[in-house]
Amino acid sequence: MKLSIIVIGDELLIGQVVDTNSGDIARMIVPAGWSVEKVITIHDDADAIRSAIRSALESSDVVLTTGGLGPTKDDITKATLLDIFGGTLKRDDTVLAHIREVFARRGLHMNALTESQAMVPDSCRVIPNELGTAPVMWFERDGKVLVSMPGVPFETRHAFAVEVLPRLLDRFADRAAIGHRTLVLTGITESDLAERIADWEDGLAEGLHLAYLPQAGYIRLRIDCVAPDEGAVALMLDQCVQWLTDNLSEHVVATADLTPEQIVMERLQRAHLTLATAESCTGGNIAHRLTMLAGVSEVFNGGVVAYSNEVKMQVLGVSAATLEANGAVSEPVAREMAEGARRALGADCAIATSGIAGPGGGTPAKPVGTVCMAFATPRGTTSCTLHLPGNRARVIDRATTEALLRLLDAI
Amino acid sequence: MKLSIIVIGDELLIGQVVDTNSGDIARMIVPAGWSVEKVITIHDDADAIRSAIRSALESSDVVLTTGGLGPTKDDITKATLLDIFGGTLKRDDTVLAHIREVFARRGLHMNALTESQAMVPDSCRVIPNELGTAPVMWFERDGKVLVSMPGVPFETRHAFAVEVLPRLLDRFADRAAIGHRTLVLTGITESDLAERIADWEDGLAEGLHLAYLPQAGYIRLRIDCVAPDEGAVALMLDQCVQWLTDNLSEHVVATADLTPEQIVMERLQRAHLTLATAESCTGGNIAHRLTMLAGVSEVFNGGVVAYSNEVKMQVLGVSAATLEANGAVSEPVAREMAEGARRALGADCAIATSGIAGPGGGTPAKPVGTVCMAFATPRGTTSCTLHLPGNRARVIDRATTEALLRLLDAI
Repeated sequence: MKLSIIVIGDELLIGQVVDTNSGDIARMIVPAGWSVEKVITIHDDADAIRSAIRSALESSDVVLTTGGLGPTKDDITKATLLDIFGGTLKRDDTVLAHIREVFARRGLHMNALTESQAMVPDSCRVIPNELGTAPVMWFERDGKVLVSMPGVPFETRHAFAVEVLPRLLDRFADRAAIGHRTLVLTGITESDLAERIADWEDGLAEGLHLAYLPQAGYIRLRIDCVAPDEGAVALMLDQCVQWLTDNLSEHVVATADLTPEQIVMERLQRAHLTLATAESCTGGNIAHRLTMLAGVSEVFNGGVVAYSNEVKMQVLGVSAATLEANGAVSEPVAREMAEGARRALGADCAIATSGIAGPGGGTPAKPVGTVCMAFATPRGTTSCTLHLPGNRARVIDRATTEALLRLLDAI
Repeated sequence: MKLSIIVIGDELLIGQVVDTNSGDIARMIVPAGWSVEKVITIHDDADAIRSAIRSALESSDVVLTTGGLGPTKDDITKATLLDIFGGTLKRDDTVLAHIREVFARRGLHMNALTESQAMVPDSCRVIPNELGTAPVMWFERDGKVLVSMPGVPFETRHAFAVEVLPRLLDRFADRAAIGHRTLVLTGITESDLAERIADWEDGLAEGLHLAYLPQAGYIRLRIDCVAPDEGAVALMLDQCVQWLTDNLSEHVVATADLTPEQIVMERLQRAHLTLATAESCTGGNIAHRLTMLAGVSEVFNGGVVAYSNEVKMQVLGVSAATLEANGAVSEPVAREMAEGARRALGADCAIATSGIAGPGGGTPAKPVGTVCMAFATPRGTTSCTLHLPGNRARVIDRATTEALLRLLDAI
C-alpha cells in the first residue's frame, strides 16, 4: 500500500516549525509493510492544497493531510475538500459536544470561530480527535482514501495511532495483525551485530523483518512482524526475542524500547539501590536525563555538578593531592568524585565524569573528547577513560549515555 | 522569487531522520523577501527524482535538491540530472583534489567509490562543498536554476549560506543587500507586544519587516531588512533596534539572537560574578544548559541537584524546621537552597528551584506545575512562585528558562 502525506502550513515553509508528523506516521506504517511514497509540504493556500491532493491521489492509495484545520484556517482546507469530494458543510452535533467538552476541560471560553469547527462536509466520515477540537475527516473515492488530520503533533500522533491506523489496516491490510519489539544492545557495532546474526536473519520466517537503529553509544534492534492474527504475531516476536537474548546475552541490556536512563532507573528499582551523580564535563546532563523520568525520585537522591576544582574538593571531598598529581581529568579524580558523591548524598551508588568537552582545554596527552568516568557501588569502585568524537554537544551527549550504560555493568 | 526544495532520501520516508535542511534554507531566504513554495520529500529513486524536478521547475524560479549524493547513491541523482539537463559525466580535478584533502584531514583511506564523486556533468557549474566530498552542482535552463546540494545537515547549511545564497542573490535579487537583527524580550505576551508597537510597525520603511518568534517564556523579535546596499541595511536595522530598546527597555534583555543561558553567561562575565545552581524540580537542566556553552567555566562554579530532602539539608544546609513548616516546594526552602548553594559552592550568585513537575505529587494547594524559585546575590535573596502549564517535560523546560531569565533581574 502506498501512502502520500501532505503537510499544510505557512509556518513550516518559513522554517519556524519543523515537521515531525510525517516521520511519526512513517514509523507507524512501515512495520505494516506499507511505504510513504512522498511528503509534500505546502502553504495554507487553496490552489496549492487542491493541486497537491489531486496529484497525490493519482499515485497513492491513501493520502493523509496534516494541518490547515485551525479555527482561523478552516475554510480553505474544508472548501478545497468540498471542491474535490463534493457535498455540503453540515453541523455535526457529536463534534460540537466534543469541542465544548475540550474547552470546558481547558477552562476556556468558546467563540463563534471555534464552533465553526463542528461544521463538516457531509461527504466524509467523521473520526474522533480525542485530544483536540478539529475533527478528523475520512473521504473515499474510486477506491482511494483521503484522511484530513489536525497538525498539532500530539493530536496527530494520537489520532493516527488510535483512530486512523486501525481503520486503514481494516481497509487495506492483506493480513490482520502487526506488531514490533525493540531490543537495546551495547558493546557491539552495527556491522559486527549484523554479521553475527546474518545466518539467523536470513532464515527468518516471512512477515518478520529486522531494523537496525544505531544511536550514539548503543543499538536499538527493532523486530517488525506482520502475521494473520495477533496470537501469531506475539508468538513470532517472542521467539525472536528469546533467540537474541540467548545468543547475545552479553550485549542485550533491555528487551523493550527503553532509553539508557529508563534502563538505569528500572535496574536500580529492581535492585533497591539509590544513585547519586558527580558531574564535571557532563555538566548536569546525567541528572537532567534521569529527572526527566517520572518516579525517578524513588532511586535518585541527587547530584553535584562539580565544574570547578574547589567544588570537587569542598563538596565531594576530592583531595588536593590527587588533583595535583593527576589533573582534574583523570581516573583517580573521577573515582574520588564518585566515592565523595556516594558519601555526601547518602546513596548506594554513584556515577562521576570528568573530561574535556571542548572546544578549548585539550592537550596532546588529553585531547578534546577525553572523558574519565567512575562508578562507586557497595561492591567497590571502577573507572575507565574514553576518547569520544565530535563537538562539545556530541561529547557531552555521548559521555552521558556511556556513563549511564556503563553503570549497568557496575551494579 | 519562488523556490522549491526537493529532499531526497529513503531514510526520511521511514521516519528514521527528520528533515531540518529545508527549514534551515527557508530561514535564510525569507529575509531576502523570497518564499519557499513547497518542499517535496521523495525516495532515492530515478523516476521520483525526475518527476519531482520537472514539476518543481514548472512552478518555481529556483529548485534546490538536498541529498541523494553519497558515494553509494551518486549514480541515480547524477544520471537523472544528466537526463534533464544533458551533458556527459567528466572528472573534475579540483573536486578530486578537494575530496583527497577531506579524506586526509579525517585520516581515512579513499576507495574507487569515493573517487567517483569527482565525476560531474559538464552541463553544470561546480560549486565548492567545503565541509564534505559531494560537490554542489548548479544547472540553468530557460532562466530557471537548479542547485543540487548534499544532504548532511552541517554541509548543506554551510554550503547554502556561504556559496549558494550569495550566487542566488546575485542572480535574482532586485536589491543587493539583506540583513536581520533579533531582539529577545521578556515579561510581555506576543499580542501585548504587537499591540504596543502596532503604530510604529505600520510606519516602518519599505524593506523592513518584523517576525514575532514566541518561545516558551520569552519572545524573539526578528527585524528583516532588504535595501540597495549594506550601509543602508545596517543603518535601517540600527534605527529599529534603537527605537525598540528606547521604547521597550524594561522588556528587552538582549539585542542579539541569544538563548537565555547565553544572556546569563554574558551578563555574569560583564559583571565579573560567578554562579551556582541548586535544583530540585529542574533536576540539573539549568546546569546542563549552561554547561553546553563553551567558556562557561569562567562564571559557573557548579551546582547541586537536590532531589531528596536529605540532600537539601546535608549538602545545602536547608533547615529541617523550614522543610517541616513549609514543605519542600515553598519559597522559604528555595531561598535557603539558593543561599546554601552560594555558600557551599563559593559563588557570588545562586539560582534555586523547587517544584512539582508531575505527573504525580500535586495537591489542591500545590498542583502540578507549581514551581518556587529563589535568587541569592551579594545584594540579597529574592524569590517567586510560578504556575506552569503542560506535562513534566514542558514544566521542567519552562522552569529552567524562567529561572535563567529571572536571574537577570536579580543581578
